[in-house]
Amino acid sequence: PERFAHEDQVANKGDYRHFMLKEIHEQPEAVANTLADKLGSHGVLTESLGPEANAILPKIENIHIIACGTSYHAGLVARYWIESISGIPVNVEVASEYRYREPVAPPNTLFIGISQSGETADTLAALRFAKENGYLQTLALCNMPGSTLVRESGLRLLTQAGIEIGVASTKAFTTQLTALYWLALALGRARGRLDKADEEKAVATLRALPRHMEVVLELEDEVKHIAEEFVDKQHALFLGRGTHYPIALEGALKLKEISYIHAEAYPAGELKHGPLALVDEDMPVVTVAPDDHLLGKLRSNLEEVRARGGQLINFIAENVDMQAGEGVINLKIPGMNDGTSPIIATLPLQLLAYHVALLKGTDVDKPRNLAKSVTVE
Amino acid sequence: PERFAHEDQVANKGDYRHFMLKEIHEQPEAVANTLADKLGSHGVLTESLGPEANAILPKIENIHIIACGTSYHAGLVARYWIESISGIPVNVEVASEYRYREPVAPPNTLFIGISQSGETADTLAALRFAKENGYLQTLALCNMPGSTLVRESGLRLLTQAGIEIGVASTKAFTTQLTALYWLALALGRARGRLDKADEEKAVATLRALPRHMEVVLELEDEVKHIAEEFVDKQHALFLGRGTHYPIALEGALKLKEISYIHAEAYPAGELKHGPLALVDEDMPVVTVAPDDHLLGKLRSNLEEVRARGGQLINFIAENVDMQAGEGVINLKIPGMNDGTSPIIATLPLQLLAYHVALLKGTDVDKPRNLAKSVTVE
Repeated sequence: PERFAHEDQVANKGDYRHFMLKEIHEQPEAVANTLADKLGSHGVLTESLGPEANAILPKIENIHIIACGTSYHAGLVARYWIESISGIPVNVEVASEYRYREPVAPPNTLFIGISQSGETADTLAALRFAKENGYLQTLALCNMPGSTLVRESGLRLLTQAGIEIGVASTKAFTTQLTALYWLALALGRARGRLDKADEEKAVATLRALPRHMEVVLELEDEVKHIAEEFVDKQHALFLGRGTHYPIALEGALKLKEISYIHAEAYPAGELKHGPLALVDEDMPVVTVAPDDHLLGKLRSNLEEVRARGGQLINFIAENVDMQAGEGVINLKIPGMNDGTSPIIATLPLQLLAYHVALLKGTDVDKPRNLAKSVTVE
Repeated sequence: PERFAHEDQVANKGDYRHFMLKEIHEQPEAVANTLADKLGSHGVLTESLGPEANAILPKIENIHIIACGTSYHAGLVARYWIESISGIPVNVEVASEYRYREPVAPPNTLFIGISQSGETADTLAALRFAKENGYLQTLALCNMPGSTLVRESGLRLLTQAGIEIGVASTKAFTTQLTALYWLALALGRARGRLDKADEEKAVATLRALPRHMEVVLELEDEVKHIAEEFVDKQHALFLGRGTHYPIALEGALKLKEISYIHAEAYPAGELKHGPLALVDEDMPVVTVAPDDHLLGKLRSNLEEVRARGGQLINFIAENVDMQAGEGVINLKIPGMNDGTSPIIATLPLQLLAYHVALLKGTDVDKPRNLAKSVTVE
């Protein structure tokens, strides 16, 4: 049956030192596999969502996305994509919060539960709440076709990441993002907000994504060099804006999970509302910016970070004009110039967390205190 | 004119060592003053919102709350209150994020901007966006009646905190929360979801709030004692659920701002999805819980925290059954037993941040790198 389709990949690290590194490098293929049944020659194919999909999609007027941990970060990116491409208002919430309050679903709200394993206890509880509370329909975004989440949801959006062994999720996350970008396109078309030319362009972008990811993964040596800056640090601050704010959250979470460095992410515009007080030479500041827009607004803050001895590490698009120098490292990332930029930008942050953990000698694939799937509350 | 009404309070610390401590202790009075024009003998009085208010309130079908920093935390609490009391869906977003994306406002959405000063640049920009994008109406929640935010908004919800000098906001926050709880009641009544008996009960709760706050402020010596646990720490983790999750965020922000300890808050249910990896003897864990509901779910996590040498500090309601002992400090907080509990629970966290900063010898009223109002981007 389909739930064992990836059995041959289990427990085989190949030439890689850790599953996590193997899974990082599997991402271009995982993304290509995830897209395989979802793209036609000129547009998105929505049949894979389930037989009901084409009737449901045009009716959706609101969306609630519910998830935990890394999957929650994928949901946060999706909010920006779906609202801007389809015009449908989106709420994203942590499952353990959603299930214990009295959330209000406006008419014609689609519930989306995201979980790699499809067995996350709080996300399942949220799904069951939604099914009893008048939602239009439920959709599972999941890597495990036979999981409880998929079986109990009305629609299914499957990722094809293959088995993920590393506790710190990597390919599950980027395939979730890929599926969510695709879903935003499907919703945009269903709502009549995405014209044929834009759909074709977006499909071409998605088709090019695995190749762009491969190019970025070739920057591993540069990232390894940057990792040395973090070895003696106990803190880090990650900054992003818009679709790249959740990527900053995810980058910080990876570093937390496997290197035990206390990394925290903020939307860049909040820096002056508190966290700037923390910045000194012991707290490097990592910025993820697809364009000058972010860095322009941040320049004066970044100078203040420098004045206090804070190290700046900027992962930026190729066209961004940012001066390197004492205490400022820029790594230009190719491919950060369209809607898929958050997916691309995730890769160097995963590599950074991995190489910092390696230098610190932690148990990369099984970090202390954490389990792969949180199937209890 | 009204904008100078508080001039006589300026730059007078009275018997207090810092403005922040004075402002913490002024909170019962500030809350009472804020409620003065908002409560009748049996119900909430909505006239103070502006002449248009009674016509607008029943029309509201969605709410967007936009703010920065501490005001954003007040908005996060309001979401829980408004959704559960009035049934109106609420979105809360950081102003610097909201203004640079393409947010979608469903029909009949009320825009609420929150800013103590009413001059926060990003919040003003968000308001101006909303005014051009088909919102039903705009409302300013503000401490400065003559501010730009109030002048440019259609409705006004004013706090009467008086001038706040300390950069780390205290009384501005609790008066914002008070006004937002009141607003939830007004919306609940306007939507026919709050019956007369519940409204009377809630009004009685609000009237009793200043007295309850005074009782909690008398716990200062106990909190001072707890502060000693933090003096040699560089990290802290704050946990809360529901309406108390944003209070954990605010408690962590206070500690960050004035003691420069890297404090981070998480919704308690997310602990196992990442941050638990960080916990060791160098990272005390602060929990804010109004009832056993939170602690029950957390008990196994808390044992893990203990097993790794992590210090537990629990600020809990009087009826919560939690065993103290080696590495576990419980402080029972009276008055954490109704809807106003998040307001009450804020007080010990403010006192904690203050006394930790005092022990560390930082410049409490003017922490490094921060300004009182962020009037530039």
